[in-house]
Amino acid sequence: MRAAIFRNGEIVVDTLPDPTPGPGQVLVRTLACGICGSDLHARKHAHRMAELTRHFPGRKPMDLTRDIVFGHEFCCEVLDFGPSTQRRFKPGTRICSLPALLTPQGPVGIGYSNDNIGGYAERMVLSEALLLEVPNGLAAEHAALTEPLAVGVHAVEKAAVRGNEVPLVIGCGPVGLAVIAALKLKRLHPIVAADYSPARRALAARLGADVVVDPAQSGPYAAWADHAALSAEDKAARPPLQAFLPALKPALIFECVGVPGMIQQVFEGAPRDARIVVVGVCMETDRSEPMLGIVKELNVQYVFGYTPDEFARSLRLIADGEVDAASMVTATVGLDGVAQAFADLANPEAQTKIIVAPWL
Amino acid sequence: MRAAIFRNGEIVVDTLPDPTPGPGQVLVRTLACGICGSDLHARKHAHRMAELTRHFPGRKPMDLTRDIVFGHEFCCEVLDFGPSTQRRFKPGTRICSLPALLTPQGPVGIGYSNDNIGGYAERMVLSEALLLEVPNGLAAEHAALTEPLAVGVHAVEKAAVRGNEVPLVIGCGPVGLAVIAALKLKRLHPIVAADYSPARRALAARLGADVVVDPAQSGPYAAWADHAALSAEDKAARPPLQAFLPALKPALIFECVGVPGMIQQVFEGAPRDARIVVVGVCMETDRSEPMLGIVKELNVQYVFGYTPDEFARSLRLIADGEVDAASMVTATVGLDGVAQAFADLANPEAQTKIIVAPWL
Repeated sequence: MRAAIFRNGEIVVDTLPDPTPGPGQVLVRTLACGICGSDLHARKHAHRMAELTRHFPGRKPMDLTRDIVFGHEFCCEVLDFGPSTQRRFKPGTRICSLPALLTPQGPVGIGYSNDNIGGYAERMVLSEALLLEVPNGLAAEHAALTEPLAVGVHAVEKAAVRGNEVPLVIGCGPVGLAVIAALKLKRLHPIVAADYSPARRALAARLGADVVVDPAQSGPYAAWADHAALSAEDKAARPPLQAFLPALKPALIFECVGVPGMIQQVFEGAPRDARIVVVGVCMETDRSEPMLGIVKELNVQYVFGYTPDEFARSLRLIADGEVDAASMVTATVGLDGVAQAFADLANPEAQTKIIVAPWL
Repeated sequence: MRAAIFRNGEIVVDTLPDPTPGPGQVLVRTLACGICGSDLHARKHAHRMAELTRHFPGRKPMDLTRDIVFGHEFCCEVLDFGPSTQRRFKPGTRICSLPALLTPQGPVGIGYSNDNIGGYAERMVLSEALLLEVPNGLAAEHAALTEPLAVGVHAVEKAAVRGNEVPLVIGCGPVGLAVIAALKLKRLHPIVAADYSPARRALAARLGADVVVDPAQSGPYAAWADHAALSAEDKAARPPLQAFLPALKPALIFECVGVPGMIQQVFEGAPRDARIVVVGVCMETDRSEPMLGIVKELNVQYVFGYTPDEFARSLRLIADGEVDAASMVTATVGLDGVAQAFADLANPEAQTKIIVAPWL
């Protein structure tokens, strides 16, 4: 079969042997697979990513001298079944799965692995127990958005919203957009979102942001404060020693950029007692001033991935039209277009989410 | 009056004019004032501390070309009253106050200020509205421990203990010891505490640690895990995808050291989903790997200071004998001994909390 392979630091198209489904596994045809910001990071910082694995006993780091097929945001079609399967779905059924295989030693990841082929290939194997049928005749390229939406749904769940916060989303790439969509479902308004790109601000508004800010024009935190004023009643109810602090509702800030220096920027801009959810995946060493976090008593919740329930819920949200995930898709390419797509995604004005359709 | 003054980067004893109580203020005689780790930091990193003030609109940075009297952990005796006071306490009454003055523009700090003299002086002025009478004939040098205990009480309050966590306290200086005392009051056991100093480990055990660890002998996180195993019942109740993770109770880690690199060490050692409370005040730029926080979904709560209620409660806890704060006091010095005491506190084996008694 054909695949776009990460080989010697580059993305190249070549043929690979078809994978064979093992016990409990299903052979699938890959219909659509989104390119994630983490794939771009992984191409650029593969050694770093492999090195970080040492902190996780039992996880196998990527061997960068061997082929790897990225791609963990996929929608597929059932082709065939391995041994010890229940054959729950007919061949031809469209399915999604969270990007993991169940093994007797525990779950192992798909997409950053020498052993488990990701979605930038014509075929993959998946664990039958993790398959979810795509409902409502949803198009494969939209079902493939389940994974990035689940990241936003999970981030908002981990934020444990109390209902009185005013959210601020920093960065409106796919991660920020998914967070905005998930916040809208929580009916937490106004949602304030900031991005330098007009195209991404337009997408943010489409997915649910009530206020969009261009950081080149005005500070996101000042814009946030304009929409976070306490009611006169709540202002009057504050204890005496707080009466001199700015009369603002609680801040819930989502960092969705994931490059070094962002957390420090948030620390500088955040109001006292802000809760910060770090959704952007920064793979480099970062520097910050803990003193700022201390004096403001900030709370930082790092988040990663999603639960199986959140993943299944995200698929239903897209299929039921509750989230207009399709608006994120700015291009679809075949396997031959993957390398160029990685380059194109550097321009946020041009591209947001590119879908790889291996059979295109 | 005499005072130990921070002047040109050093602590020197000199005379200063007696302070005059303004409206709402009380003139007091300083009986005892603890030396805080932050005072040592401030002497070493005064420019840095002054610079950080720029992040706080309305706060006045220290002018390091002028005299400053440190000292924010004090117990005093009422001497005289300024205008517009209610004279709630008789002269001679022993009082504590949180280290702030109420002004029409809001509260301003005592101890890191050119205007408001701290506790390393024979007299100070305080706001009458903030005074708390010392109960039960408690000795002034023990009442002066109210402030550091309040730091621990506040840290544990901000941790929002759920009751099923196993706490790990990293660093058993006065801050770590106060956290241990506050955790004991929450009946959260076992309390695991780590410090390189045998003297401090002994104090940790005295104040409530159930397990003390010498990091030179064994890893604090491995020692913690030995005491955090899930019950067989809770282990069996975990969802299938979690069944492969270590079967541990939730971790609640208190970082009480406050030097660069500590947060990264905690990130490396912490188990998945740990909650980390940063109580140690690190005034320098820090480096860390956000990726570790992300993949483990860590939560970091920075804490600072205490509420007026927590401060008042801390004084009662000491006076009622609920916390053996007195055991922390390892020396008492006069004003002439302050400079040497700053040097002596560098040796954790020799000193934990030194009390300055300006009239000694």
